[in-house]
Amino acid sequence: MRYTQLFGKTSKTISADADSINAKLLTQGGFIQKEISGVYNYLPLGLRVLTKIQNIVREEMNKIGGQEILMPAMTQEESWKTTNRNSMDVLFHLKGQGDTDLVLNPTHEEVVTPLAQKYTFSYRDLPFAVYQIQNKFRNEARAKSGLMRGREFNMKDLYSFHTDEADLNRYYEIVKKAYFEIYKRIGLGDITVLAFASGGAFSQFSHEFQTINKNGEDTIYLCKKCNVAINKEIIDTQKTCPECGNDKLETIKATEVGNIFKLRTKFSHAFNFYYSDKGGQDKIVEMGCYGFGPSRVMGTIAEIFNDDKGLIWPESVAPYQIHLIGLDLFDEDIKKQAEDLYQKLLDKNIEVLFDDRIDVAAGAKFADADLIGIPTRLVISKRSLQNGGVERKKRNESQSEIIAFDKIIL
Amino acid sequence: MRYTQLFGKTSKTISADADSINAKLLTQGGFIQKEISGVYNYLPLGLRVLTKIQNIVREEMNKIGGQEILMPAMTQEESWKTTNRNSMDVLFHLKGQGDTDLVLNPTHEEVVTPLAQKYTFSYRDLPFAVYQIQNKFRNEARAKSGLMRGREFNMKDLYSFHTDEADLNRYYEIVKKAYFEIYKRIGLGDITVLAFASGGAFSQFSHEFQTINKNGEDTIYLCKKCNVAINKEIIDTQKTCPECGNDKLETIKATEVGNIFKLRTKFSHAFNFYYSDKGGQDKIVEMGCYGFGPSRVMGTIAEIFNDDKGLIWPESVAPYQIHLIGLDLFDEDIKKQAEDLYQKLLDKNIEVLFDDRIDVAAGAKFADADLIGIPTRLVISKRSLQNGGVERKKRNESQSEIIAFDKIIL
Repeated sequence: MRYTQLFGKTSKTISADADSINAKLLTQGGFIQKEISGVYNYLPLGLRVLTKIQNIVREEMNKIGGQEILMPAMTQEESWKTTNRNSMDVLFHLKGQGDTDLVLNPTHEEVVTPLAQKYTFSYRDLPFAVYQIQNKFRNEARAKSGLMRGREFNMKDLYSFHTDEADLNRYYEIVKKAYFEIYKRIGLGDITVLAFASGGAFSQFSHEFQTINKNGEDTIYLCKKCNVAINKEIIDTQKTCPECGNDKLETIKATEVGNIFKLRTKFSHAFNFYYSDKGGQDKIVEMGCYGFGPSRVMGTIAEIFNDDKGLIWPESVAPYQIHLIGLDLFDEDIKKQAEDLYQKLLDKNIEVLFDDRIDVAAGAKFADADLIGIPTRLVISKRSLQNGGVERKKRNESQSEIIAFDKIIL
Repeated sequence: MRYTQLFGKTSKTISADADSINAKLLTQGGFIQKEISGVYNYLPLGLRVLTKIQNIVREEMNKIGGQEILMPAMTQEESWKTTNRNSMDVLFHLKGQGDTDLVLNPTHEEVVTPLAQKYTFSYRDLPFAVYQIQNKFRNEARAKSGLMRGREFNMKDLYSFHTDEADLNRYYEIVKKAYFEIYKRIGLGDITVLAFASGGAFSQFSHEFQTINKNGEDTIYLCKKCNVAINKEIIDTQKTCPECGNDKLETIKATEVGNIFKLRTKFSHAFNFYYSDKGGQDKIVEMGCYGFGPSRVMGTIAEIFNDDKGLIWPESVAPYQIHLIGLDLFDEDIKKQAEDLYQKLLDKNIEVLFDDRIDVAAGAKFADADLIGIPTRLVISKRSLQNGGVERKKRNESQSEIIAFDKIIL
């Protein structure tokens, strides 16, 4: 993509409402633009990052047998009455024609449970797991600036269905591993830990994935031996590490980047979701649910990988792999060589953002590249050509080096 | 994918509300499941079809320089007051915390115009085109059953921005060509025509793409010389072919599968969207918008490509390319050969649905394959092996043929 054609430009000015690091950096870098509080537009650069995160999540869900479906944002309020959740304060209510009561789903147990029920008759239909990647709505009283806590936000939600608790427990551990694989792939692996949280009415614990972040809104108590934490909400009842009993826990700021629950039979009871077992007896279905917010995780990555000049994307989720900067482009020969290089990179299927602006100074181009945060910067200029090639610099390093043309393809 | 594991099964029973052909066939085939009137769940098979249509549209939009963005479903009612469209009866209204007035966007001029404005300053920023593939909401009084007219539905909407009318006209013709390329690729090319429709306040005409469909809800008047039609709504003012003046027009039933508008300056006026021209003068921005509903088009394809046994998907949008049916699978040797073949097809990256059910009769498996409508059926059975291979039948042909194992890869 040519920078001169790219929709959405960088901005040095910080909008007044950018009270969070991710909103500030992502807006300045030209990734997102606020629509209203807690609701954002994704510009081309931002959508590329979001899509990359979604695709990594999709691959890992497919690997553990998750089948992708797509449920709607809108449903009848009646389904939420069935589970006694229709008075949840984050539920958006609206009226359909004919005065029908509708809601926007902030989560999909009320949709997926009756849907799964339609195709589940006997033990032979179990277990299975379905997931979707879709936008959810929460009527947040105080939506946070940026992508961390939105009113409209992107979620991957996986739901699993089982004949009994043992099988739910088995699959729950498989999902846990898949989640750690996702965090590893998107660059958060080393700083993301499993945290025990409240299990609600039916389980002792649920689990969160917490990414250590000095600006995070959560407080967790970390056992350094097990690399396992306890969420603040249960620290009064669970004062020691649930795995080793260690009572020397470290208080750390973190951001929640995923949560998984054993729903057990809470929703299958509400919808009378039974299956016929091997002996022909009706048994209740056991359920698990597993949430991961691609948009929230994009915000988290932005909060963690940055410096005072801008963003520093991990390779796997960067909008482009290469930020190619052409300097001295008023010189026709240099321009031709820059264009040739751009074309060669495209031909090799390398994702390149090409700063082809002629009338912008080198300093401004470097500043824009730093704001955007693409992992590798290549500069082609009169000087680089005199030195025998192209100047390469990693966004997270300060030294650049000259690379000969025939060695550029990484 | 193994049929025994696939979420969402075929059904012989027709649900009472399936008053349209597409709802009936897509529900029976296990593609969609109704949530509420005009709102559908996409099961794995259905999501595969929808995604294929979306990806074809995406490729064609990218080819004509469209840049993909993602705008939210939700915005403030204020933006709709700016354009005097806040009393549109299909607009869903809802209240945010703090009693703020919000709406769900049924189209995105009210979002994209101020968004584009933020990044457009001078003639050098023009022209450009952005699009999104996203779910929209319309509070339809009478939502149609199936995917044809929903309350929540998928749309691709492209918006273009220009310095003047001539440039808008130039790009409008480029989009028109891209649309025909899309219809060609998804199998509707031969039966889709351009229809002239009302241009609203600012243009003489807008254009619809109408697919000839004996069950279609629209009536068009077709000039067979030019393969161009007139929509019923303007036939009183435009009685002859706008291209050749022919007054012998054929009355035909059709389904609208896309529409494009020259918005001209309607929305740029409302939002005061000006740019600075070469001479430094402020000029108003000219706009075009181009809609295509992947979910509606999926419904249209289902309405057109079927027989009394079920769906018949065009190759390019079929959920899988091959429906592999194993018969006599209680025989361990046949089972092994069927499993080997399934694995070989997967290894070749062929999309295959494998009916691996052991206890289901051949007739029921064939009936399910017909309902689902995958283009090519392969049957591996005791008989086919005795005959030296696998029985291949196209869904739209009645004859099958025996194919030797080494010639199966198509």
